[in-house]
Amino acid sequence: MQVAPPAPDMVHSLARLNDTAAQAKAAGCDLLVTPEMYLSGYNIGAARVLELAQTADGPASAQVADIARRHGLAILYGYPQADPQGGAPFNAVQLIDAAGARIAHYRKTHLYGDVDRAQFQAGQTRAPVVSWNGWRIALAICYDIEFPELTRAYALDGADLVLVPTANMIPYDSVATRLVPARAEENGLFVVYVNYCGSEGDFDYCGLSCVCAPDGRDIARAGRGPGLIVADLDRAEIARTRQAVRYLHDRRPEIYTEIGTNRDDI
Amino acid sequence: MQVAPPAPDMVHSLARLNDTAAQAKAAGCDLLVTPEMYLSGYNIGAARVLELAQTADGPASAQVADIARRHGLAILYGYPQADPQGGAPFNAVQLIDAAGARIAHYRKTHLYGDVDRAQFQAGQTRAPVVSWNGWRIALAICYDIEFPELTRAYALDGADLVLVPTANMIPYDSVATRLVPARAEENGLFVVYVNYCGSEGDFDYCGLSCVCAPDGRDIARAGRGPGLIVADLDRAEIARTRQAVRYLHDRRPEIYTEIGTNRDDI
Repeated sequence: MQVAPPAPDMVHSLARLNDTAAQAKAAGCDLLVTPEMYLSGYNIGAARVLELAQTADGPASAQVADIARRHGLAILYGYPQADPQGGAPFNAVQLIDAAGARIAHYRKTHLYGDVDRAQFQAGQTRAPVVSWNGWRIALAICYDIEFPELTRAYALDGADLVLVPTANMIPYDSVATRLVPARAEENGLFVVYVNYCGSEGDFDYCGLSCVCAPDGRDIARAGRGPGLIVADLDRAEIARTRQAVRYLHDRRPEIYTEIGTNRDDI
Repeated sequence: MQVAPPAPDMVHSLARLNDTAAQAKAAGCDLLVTPEMYLSGYNIGAARVLELAQTADGPASAQVADIARRHGLAILYGYPQADPQGGAPFNAVQLIDAAGARIAHYRKTHLYGDVDRAQFQAGQTRAPVVSWNGWRIALAICYDIEFPELTRAYALDGADLVLVPTANMIPYDSVATRLVPARAEENGLFVVYVNYCGSEGDFDYCGLSCVCAPDGRDIARAGRGPGLIVADLDRAEIARTRQAVRYLHDRRPEIYTEIGTNRDDI
């Protein structure tokens, strides 16, 4: 679902999620993906993030689970996760299945610029790849997908579908149109990139949400405006693509071991 | 220089290189880049590769050095390098400066399919980044650039320009139009990708040679036919781009250390 950012009001966000879930189910969808920080809005300031932050099993998760059960589809949603240690919240996403079970969770690991650093602390691990409806799903958030390393690591973990809620602004169209398709192609997997449209504070979001196939082509692509982008994914395409182009098999990790190590001078 | 593959005849290849060097110098170029295995041709069979293989300082290198000196420009060229241990040749490139000095050398590390494996053995290290005319240059060959790891390693080595002779076939246009620009953008450096056009045996080369800027945009782009693609690179663009989007600085190697290690099960 590509939508304008919600006012920082979870009641409104949850109502819109419920409406969109109904629409998605009617369109035959099994999974609905929201933009980054969908429940609260993204560019809302540290104080408001802290105020709206919840635990992964808090009241908002229960309401999303209700919506998932009501309409019979899985939902991946973004929200600010409270830190039980009292630090800044995490920029998080959670996957809830059609039975209302919380099956996957991820905290953004690559913080983007001042907007992320002022509002959030960074996650410290990638998401465990989870099985859902015959798919192996990995999670990333916005800036994360711009780093080829993370999607490669997920591919090596066995992921065949990477879900990426985002809040990407104009003029960074090339992330949506070049880097996201590149991640799909260079790993031979599906990537779903779900952005906002419209504006929020001083950000004009670029839309261009997409579903990219294992050969990098667009299966579905939004424009600048709001809408539910529907795609039908054929998992068999992964094996076909990887048989023709064997990127995972043909890597030479010993040639570039250093990329997995920290450098203080960069 | 985007050209049809030479007949496997080095006399012809060197004559054409000399003509193209004159044309490049007249166009103001300081550096001329050929496609992969330019001196011999690429899809010529293991026996012919072995027959034409030379050492890095062999007679062909002396003739390329003569051409470089004669026209006063540097040349990066592809050729089959003989293995002094008597194994299969390497798929190699060598950079010779305008004074005729051999300043950089690289052996393809990612072998592509049966065509590479039947003809070559793989290189075992990435190229040292070399300084030339104020630039720090790294080298890759064809399939190498499709692996994000290698260009990332070069970026961390301090490269600001990656030169990539290639022999990329139809239908793999997306390598030239999506993955090569992505390597430039995700590392904030220049990538020069120089392909064949025309056909050679059962390969139809896709052309589409390009020079990509640190923001991923095309500075120059060939079509399907032959031609000298000329581009003027502004090194200051690297610093400007990296100030705005800090990919190298914002990496989280500890999140994906595994991508630098070998896996037997992939």
